[in-house]
Amino acid sequence: MHTTLIGGDWGSSNLRVFRFGDAGQILEQRDVARGVLTVVNRAFESTLSQVIGDWLDSAEVPILLCGMVGSRQGWAEAPYISCPARLNDLRGKKIRVHTASFAVSIVPGLMVRGGDGRLDVMRGEETQIFGMDEIRHPTVAGTHVVVTPGTHSKWAIVEGGRIVDFSTYMTGELFAVLRAHSILGKLMQVDTYDHAAFDHAAFELGVTRALEDPAITRLLFSVRCEGLFETIAPQALSEYLSGLLIGAEIGAAISHCARVPVTVVGSPQMTSLYQKALALAGVTAVTIVDGDRAVGVGLWQLAQENRP
Amino acid sequence: MHTTLIGGDWGSSNLRVFRFGDAGQILEQRDVARGVLTVVNRAFESTLSQVIGDWLDSAEVPILLCGMVGSRQGWAEAPYISCPARLNDLRGKKIRVHTASFAVSIVPGLMVRGGDGRLDVMRGEETQIFGMDEIRHPTVAGTHVVVTPGTHSKWAIVEGGRIVDFSTYMTGELFAVLRAHSILGKLMQVDTYDHAAFDHAAFELGVTRALEDPAITRLLFSVRCEGLFETIAPQALSEYLSGLLIGAEIGAAISHCARVPVTVVGSPQMTSLYQKALALAGVTAVTIVDGDRAVGVGLWQLAQENRP
Repeated sequence: MHTTLIGGDWGSSNLRVFRFGDAGQILEQRDVARGVLTVVNRAFESTLSQVIGDWLDSAEVPILLCGMVGSRQGWAEAPYISCPARLNDLRGKKIRVHTASFAVSIVPGLMVRGGDGRLDVMRGEETQIFGMDEIRHPTVAGTHVVVTPGTHSKWAIVEGGRIVDFSTYMTGELFAVLRAHSILGKLMQVDTYDHAAFDHAAFELGVTRALEDPAITRLLFSVRCEGLFETIAPQALSEYLSGLLIGAEIGAAISHCARVPVTVVGSPQMTSLYQKALALAGVTAVTIVDGDRAVGVGLWQLAQENRP
Repeated sequence: MHTTLIGGDWGSSNLRVFRFGDAGQILEQRDVARGVLTVVNRAFESTLSQVIGDWLDSAEVPILLCGMVGSRQGWAEAPYISCPARLNDLRGKKIRVHTASFAVSIVPGLMVRGGDGRLDVMRGEETQIFGMDEIRHPTVAGTHVVVTPGTHSKWAIVEGGRIVDFSTYMTGELFAVLRAHSILGKLMQVDTYDHAAFDHAAFELGVTRALEDPAITRLLFSVRCEGLFETIAPQALSEYLSGLLIGAEIGAAISHCARVPVTVVGSPQMTSLYQKALALAGVTAVTIVDGDRAVGVGLWQLAQENRP
């Protein structure tokens, strides 16, 4: 079937691409470990060509990208739009990338500047959020909280289709660098990692401790101590660390969740962990949205012209 | 002059050795970047020989080591003694390492197990603490708080010459891994690091923010945001990160500091940062102790026979 649009969420670690038909239906999808940080010598064009070259029936097929690809470390720096921002605000601020062979545009990011001087930014998650049916067509009026777990987890406050504020937690990146580069990884058996063997008890212990005690830079050292005395098994230390970091995030953000709908957007694996951790924090009414679908719909929506 | 004892603080990154005369005076001192984690193929004996070989006037000169060298990743695993513990408790539990050429012993570590199941461990800092004149001969009765900033900062509660409790904060290691391996290091100009150009304003901003807000996994992302918008200069981002992490540590531990003497033990550079950060948290009466001297005295003290 004819390709109307190619969309891509090009983050730090992964590139996820979608081929859209005339009505916005996703005809095909690919996910490759060719994130922005893996691209050397700025070979963005050839990397993209390798991944989607066979999808291009003509050079005029528009390509729309979101995520870290629009950052200073990416292909071209797209602006940050200030919050509050709605879908239409982003549609009008896409940037065109000048390439020899492709018609590539990049979605802008979002920024927020708090009254206390607090700054925050996002790139990619805005596309997921505007791709959620629950946000574009809310069944509940008022404020929504949307959580996008990941390398840099975002907690966004959404009101009437506008992202009004958000905060970033370095949960996923802390997990990765502490496991790979700190003493906490020394006692872990990460080479035998097996998704089916995920130790839920260790994860929940971590979440519970972090919800009770906000001193996460102290709690982190307990990963080593529990490993040294084998009070947590080596193959469960990774889950315990994950629980501590997700618990710290939820403990800090939980004040936003009182009496508002909470939605978690992401992969089935991540959303189920957050759902479990939120339940331990007393938040049980959580909507789960598939992250792949949300970003695909968001890219399609952002590719359309502005509407009044 | 005759060598009575060789003492060494052999940590993860560095080996610091002392040559003692008959009365415990330090005749010579060396500090080399040959920490336990740099020793390959368990070549502890040859590493030590390279560093202190010329100090040995006979094979019988006793060598006493403390620190990570006694951990599971070290030369030989020394036990952990449970808190509360006094100097004499450690003297009796040194382990002897069997080597072809040296008379090496290793100081045990300390552990604490809280009523809530909390575990913590130290190796090396106990020797510093028992090396402090202020702890062995306190001029103020009652509780003392001793802080040893570093890779794994320790906050110890000392009563009547006994270490009764302590907590570890991963401050120094978080700083190092985030700077080297996370997105926070991307915008830093760390290659131009210059001690004299240390940006105190950025450090103090970090401390202040972390004292006001315990959500450190969120605050950490502000290092990137402040860098992106150049609201903090690239060459000051490292100091801002340092301030955030030290502020988080002090904010979490500050409750121990009410109406008790607080002593910070370490290098002049680290102790002055902690003194500044403690002042921002309202703790102004702080005693500073030189870490080198403390560990040297501690090794000499621990090498002596038990006393009633």
